[in-house]
Amino acid sequence: MQNIRQDAKQKKRARLLNFIRETRSCSRSEISACLDIDKKSVSLIIDSLISDSLIVSSGFRDSQAGRRQELLSILGSHSNYIGIDLGATHIIGVRTDLNCKVLDRVVFEIRPGLSVDIILEQMRSIIRTLMNSETGTADLHAVGVCLPGFVNPVDGISLMAENIPGWSEIEIRRILEGTVGKSVYVEDCSRAMGLAEKWLGKGSDVDNFLVLDLGYGIGMALFIEGELYTGAGYKSGEIGHIVIDKYGPVCTCGKKGCLEVYASGRGIARIAADLIGQKKSTILEELIHGDVKSVTAQDVALAASMNDEISLQIITEAGEHIGTALSHGVNILNPQKIILGGGLTGAGKPLFDSIQEALSTHTMKEIAADVTVEQSDLGIDISAMGSALVAMAHVFQPV
Amino acid sequence: MQNIRQDAKQKKRARLLNFIRETRSCSRSEISACLDIDKKSVSLIIDSLISDSLIVSSGFRDSQAGRRQELLSILGSHSNYIGIDLGATHIIGVRTDLNCKVLDRVVFEIRPGLSVDIILEQMRSIIRTLMNSETGTADLHAVGVCLPGFVNPVDGISLMAENIPGWSEIEIRRILEGTVGKSVYVEDCSRAMGLAEKWLGKGSDVDNFLVLDLGYGIGMALFIEGELYTGAGYKSGEIGHIVIDKYGPVCTCGKKGCLEVYASGRGIARIAADLIGQKKSTILEELIHGDVKSVTAQDVALAASMNDEISLQIITEAGEHIGTALSHGVNILNPQKIILGGGLTGAGKPLFDSIQEALSTHTMKEIAADVTVEQSDLGIDISAMGSALVAMAHVFQPV
Repeated sequence: MQNIRQDAKQKKRARLLNFIRETRSCSRSEISACLDIDKKSVSLIIDSLISDSLIVSSGFRDSQAGRRQELLSILGSHSNYIGIDLGATHIIGVRTDLNCKVLDRVVFEIRPGLSVDIILEQMRSIIRTLMNSETGTADLHAVGVCLPGFVNPVDGISLMAENIPGWSEIEIRRILEGTVGKSVYVEDCSRAMGLAEKWLGKGSDVDNFLVLDLGYGIGMALFIEGELYTGAGYKSGEIGHIVIDKYGPVCTCGKKGCLEVYASGRGIARIAADLIGQKKSTILEELIHGDVKSVTAQDVALAASMNDEISLQIITEAGEHIGTALSHGVNILNPQKIILGGGLTGAGKPLFDSIQEALSTHTMKEIAADVTVEQSDLGIDISAMGSALVAMAHVFQPV
Repeated sequence: MQNIRQDAKQKKRARLLNFIRETRSCSRSEISACLDIDKKSVSLIIDSLISDSLIVSSGFRDSQAGRRQELLSILGSHSNYIGIDLGATHIIGVRTDLNCKVLDRVVFEIRPGLSVDIILEQMRSIIRTLMNSETGTADLHAVGVCLPGFVNPVDGISLMAENIPGWSEIEIRRILEGTVGKSVYVEDCSRAMGLAEKWLGKGSDVDNFLVLDLGYGIGMALFIEGELYTGAGYKSGEIGHIVIDKYGPVCTCGKKGCLEVYASGRGIARIAADLIGQKKSTILEELIHGDVKSVTAQDVALAASMNDEISLQIITEAGEHIGTALSHGVNILNPQKIILGGGLTGAGKPLFDSIQEALSTHTMKEIAADVTVEQSDLGIDISAMGSALVAMAHVFQPV
């Protein structure tokens, strides 16, 4: 019976702490009413959280009854966290406090094809810089790292990253923990992005939603009844490898005509390089100084936003394919919301409109009526932030 | 504190009862070891379950230590349940005990196009027959009904059933409770089928799996971390309305080229009727006595199992489309298992093989490696059984 009571107590404490985190700021009576916990228990738990420096009084507000109510918030300076996003074209690192406030930030631009050792050394270097950051506000508790490809978060292993030659079964947690001397958590980049949307972005008000990561590759985070869903082998969300045209060009995965062939950053760059040879695009060619081989999806997205005809065509077709693949997931999952994130969203309205149109054409109307599509507003650091949240999450779980 | 203890106790009791149900037969020490509950608590709960006539001693077995261990099982005669499956071509009713043993069964063959009133009267008639069944072993506790189309299980409303003219927003729970004087639970037919697989079939050993319902329409039940997932508006699983060819024939949902157009019972009958006009099929024509308009998917499935060339072609193409649509769900969900059920599975190996082949062609190889495809062995009463389970489920939930 002692154990049951202890478990129930820990769960209640975690629920309460998460409620304060989610609301940003709330009173004891709001906690009691919303979580259906009696006021005396709330006060006892609050006292223990304050004494553990996890929460802090953040002001007062007049209640309807005319009494002043003390507001409570997470104490950011309880602890600091580092989040690292290993992308295809950059490694971004952030240092945050427990309130998810970014205290410092380091970015390395990288080129595809770097060796495993160089990538690992760059990650270590960013972590060291952030560990020694002068803007830190508390001890560093843990480091989160997100990686492309398949990741096993339980064993801390990065199984595969197709942009890095020789990157296979890398024991990233063990390697980095050896260097930094702190707990290291690893996650897939799209899921880290999803977690950032759930905690800080447009996923905070919904339980069943999808976060689409439109970058150099295309990934997706799935939230089911409020929880991140990883699948049987941590491989859920591979919407980028839904086959659009089985007679299409070969994809990096070995199949033909996957969504990534047509709509990923990698795919768009390839299509743009082909098309520039055939048609004239003044804007796009100027952006790349005539160096066709160097064209990136970012260039195409920028040119599209400047109404470059070829770029608009490429982006619109990519959006159609993305919307079609999304419709398959929506018909099956009946989600409340889809959040679009990743570098490609820089293409703006033409991309967004073509995704929306294809999605609505291919989704059952009763199911389309349940879902809204929104663009992320968390910016380029979203996955690095998500990685910091992966490291931070254990504070908010019952021990 | 009293409430927490009470909640924990009810949850523990429900966990224990479900464990006995899942194992069919187990000893006190197995319960204690597998559920990590101390032996004294287990004994107290067992005593209360026996005194409530929910479980019963079902024999003895020698333990490794040489002591005789008493085995415990669900007491079937605790209560009886009725499950009703409203299909496109039949209404099936079963009466079961709490051990899911079928005590009686009634089937009405129906034709598409019957009115709402006639369908409701037929359902009432089946329920009355089963209520008065002489083979009943206990009081009837509740009735479960599954329906095609969209169902709101919380409000007990059948929102739409495209095979029944005028069937829209039918308050099926209220209507039937008025007639039978017992609690009525409603669910979507594919989800009832899924529940039957989880409790009685090939879903009992997995947590993340899909149950594909290949019938007059095509539906799918999703199990996520052991729980049936219904989606934001109870509309998950509409794999039948994934678009295969956006230039294809119009579907009943209003879109073009949905999977159901090519691979549902309805679609296959249409394709067969078209093809018989163009090509000679001795076997199929003999099966339907030359009445082309009367051809059904069951006829085509049977003819295919007899190696009829046209029927084999139709079934193989349907399987290719089913496997392709499934691959979209598998790439996104990374499930452990897919269970194929429904009348069309009568087509056997040609269908199964073509589904498998298309699935493996279109699924990322790392994700395909995690999933097995199996055929249901629960037979034609599966959804009626699933409906009885929907009615029975509240016995196994914490009160």
